[in-house]
Amino acid sequence: MNTDLNQMIDSIALEGRKAALELQSISAQKITEALQIMAKLLENEADNLKIENRKDLDSAKEKGLSSAMIDRLTLSDKAIKAMINGLNEVAQLKSPVGTHFDERIRPNGTRIYKMRVPIGVVGIIYESRPNVTIDAAAICLKSHNAVILRGGSEAIHSNMALASLFSKAILQAGLPKNAVQIISTTDRKAIELLLTKNDYIDLIIPRGGEGLIRMVTEKSHIPVIKHYNGICHIYVAADADMKKAVPVIINSKVQRPGTCNAIETLLLDVNLPQQSKLLIIEQLLDKGVTLFADPQTTKLSASIKEATEESWRTEYLDLRLSVRTVDGLQQAIDHINTYGSHHTDSILTESKQNAEIFLKMVDSASVMVNASTRLADGGEYGMGCEIGISTEKLHARGPMGVEDLTTYKWIVEGEGQIRT
Amino acid sequence: MNTDLNQMIDSIALEGRKAALELQSISAQKITEALQIMAKLLENEADNLKIENRKDLDSAKEKGLSSAMIDRLTLSDKAIKAMINGLNEVAQLKSPVGTHFDERIRPNGTRIYKMRVPIGVVGIIYESRPNVTIDAAAICLKSHNAVILRGGSEAIHSNMALASLFSKAILQAGLPKNAVQIISTTDRKAIELLLTKNDYIDLIIPRGGEGLIRMVTEKSHIPVIKHYNGICHIYVAADADMKKAVPVIINSKVQRPGTCNAIETLLLDVNLPQQSKLLIIEQLLDKGVTLFADPQTTKLSASIKEATEESWRTEYLDLRLSVRTVDGLQQAIDHINTYGSHHTDSILTESKQNAEIFLKMVDSASVMVNASTRLADGGEYGMGCEIGISTEKLHARGPMGVEDLTTYKWIVEGEGQIRT
Repeated sequence: MNTDLNQMIDSIALEGRKAALELQSISAQKITEALQIMAKLLENEADNLKIENRKDLDSAKEKGLSSAMIDRLTLSDKAIKAMINGLNEVAQLKSPVGTHFDERIRPNGTRIYKMRVPIGVVGIIYESRPNVTIDAAAICLKSHNAVILRGGSEAIHSNMALASLFSKAILQAGLPKNAVQIISTTDRKAIELLLTKNDYIDLIIPRGGEGLIRMVTEKSHIPVIKHYNGICHIYVAADADMKKAVPVIINSKVQRPGTCNAIETLLLDVNLPQQSKLLIIEQLLDKGVTLFADPQTTKLSASIKEATEESWRTEYLDLRLSVRTVDGLQQAIDHINTYGSHHTDSILTESKQNAEIFLKMVDSASVMVNASTRLADGGEYGMGCEIGISTEKLHARGPMGVEDLTTYKWIVEGEGQIRT
Repeated sequence: MNTDLNQMIDSIALEGRKAALELQSISAQKITEALQIMAKLLENEADNLKIENRKDLDSAKEKGLSSAMIDRLTLSDKAIKAMINGLNEVAQLKSPVGTHFDERIRPNGTRIYKMRVPIGVVGIIYESRPNVTIDAAAICLKSHNAVILRGGSEAIHSNMALASLFSKAILQAGLPKNAVQIISTTDRKAIELLLTKNDYIDLIIPRGGEGLIRMVTEKSHIPVIKHYNGICHIYVAADADMKKAVPVIINSKVQRPGTCNAIETLLLDVNLPQQSKLLIIEQLLDKGVTLFADPQTTKLSASIKEATEESWRTEYLDLRLSVRTVDGLQQAIDHINTYGSHHTDSILTESKQNAEIFLKMVDSASVMVNASTRLADGGEYGMGCEIGISTEKLHARGPMGVEDLTTYKWIVEGEGQIRT
């Protein structure tokens, strides 16, 4: 019954709100402890976890899921070890909650500043990877937020087992028991209902494929921070230094092509020397990259295939790459702003002026000069961890860390001041 | 035809996006000039404006609109003067766009920092006050954003006249011609269509009644920053100093009761001395405030009416006030977090410890100690202006100024660094 389901989701949302209010006065130390206890529990309960995970894997095979999906679903020793390390790393991070900033004393004598506070209740809606249950919950909790998790139906046994361990850790550390909750039904209606609970839930983070993210964006009454696709570019200016350019291009495409910060399109300046172009093309082909290019560029090698208009909008996520020759910096910028996904884009140039224009005019979360797009990452940026890479413009843009899961309130300290 | 309307809105959204990209490289000086030219135009064209405004006023009277609504709709000399002053003030503010912050040098030698940039395209959906056309457009433009305005149908002639002056000012200053656009149709469908243009529009700010804001929140595929209602509280602790308390309470309720930062509920600590309670009640009654209280509090005066559960959730916006006796600090905090609108709440106390707990535990955009809630305002906080008071937790909370209409991008400057 939908009424029952609505009551269930309503109650989860309300309990989340209550836990969030309690979490405001919980010491940072207790949260650190909860994360460390959780790491220990994962180590001790690895065998039981694998039993639950096996149920998901068996039904995945029955349903004929792809080997890539089964791979993402598997809680191997390596995957469990990565979750344990993640928990211990997040536990060690400094909590930003409670710090003061932007202080000013006003002419009437009031002292006004911003206090960093948790956002409140965060809903995470994700697909097959069960490790998100741990990683996302840990980062949210570290910033004193209550979390409501809703994983994919194909990982339900694994997710329930992980969430039940988290509940144990939370109770042992003395945190409010509903600080981490999981939605136990796989009914898709539950997501739609969750997205209407804007009185209790403050933020929704969807993690998964385009379909999920589009659905969440369209149905949510709650603010959403999307981690969308990455159609990332490198533009090689005419004056690029090939000693830097070749390794950066190869790294950006080949090091881990399935990630959102790998490049999908390479823009070559028309005035780049012919031998530099040939060197880049040769190196890419040599690494097994299939190239799709505009007519001008296909002439460089018989192995290059023809691109279509659709190529410039394609996120391959594998060893394929679109290549286009552009008529200078402005055309490169126009191409990126038109076809890109505003994620991460890099210019390779020795000209400070070119770099400055590119940095200013490319409308993306991360804009780079002479660096691999693969560096767009919370760890590489010095955040210690990340909950994902936001393609949103509001609140948090690019790699999102613990501080991005906080907000602020204005504090006004007076001695009886009134408005005149 | 809906197809025509959709094409119209699509074209406005796309032109907004193009203007936004151009505005990224426009000098701050040119924007300042546009605002100053607009101030001059308002002065010179005041008579023509009033002719257009008269058309709106005539049809408002025909339709039998309330005198309060007609008042809000009127472009009097005073209202025009206020717009001119507002424009000149915003013009003088420092532009935050282009500044760098959060810089770090990473172990691999990359220099990483955030660059403050405009949000892009901002849609403002508002109701009867035509001055919003100018105030909102000015603040958006100051932060290098393109603006799309959609005012109420009852102010259509005034809004069109104001927007056409803005277009003149923009052209004279050399800004992209679609930096400020207005939707000329009063068809309500236009709003719904606008809210689906998430490929072009980055932010929607609704300003108006609860119905409008609810509709926008539910239908928008674009992030929304709401300026919702203000159910603001003062909690008078047992140890409050009456010399500060009485003026602060009176100011918070009486100075301008129609604003969102006026108090709607007063919480009196059960241990506040009887004569202090009587003094507060007497002063409020003396100023013409009608009081609605719980049974315990109604005993203080024969003039106090009985409150209902609904009273605690009511935003009166006039000289009425709910009063409740609470059993200590924790109950005050619980009341505020349960019934309030997370806007602005103040504690009156001489205890540092009480104040600290209140500041930490009250989950509102502005939390105050010994100060009038009426101080929750961009001007009072030192921002020079405000586009409104956000009741959102994400991106911008409380009074929103020019900087809150910007975002950032990550800049990574390398010398060939790759990910290992």
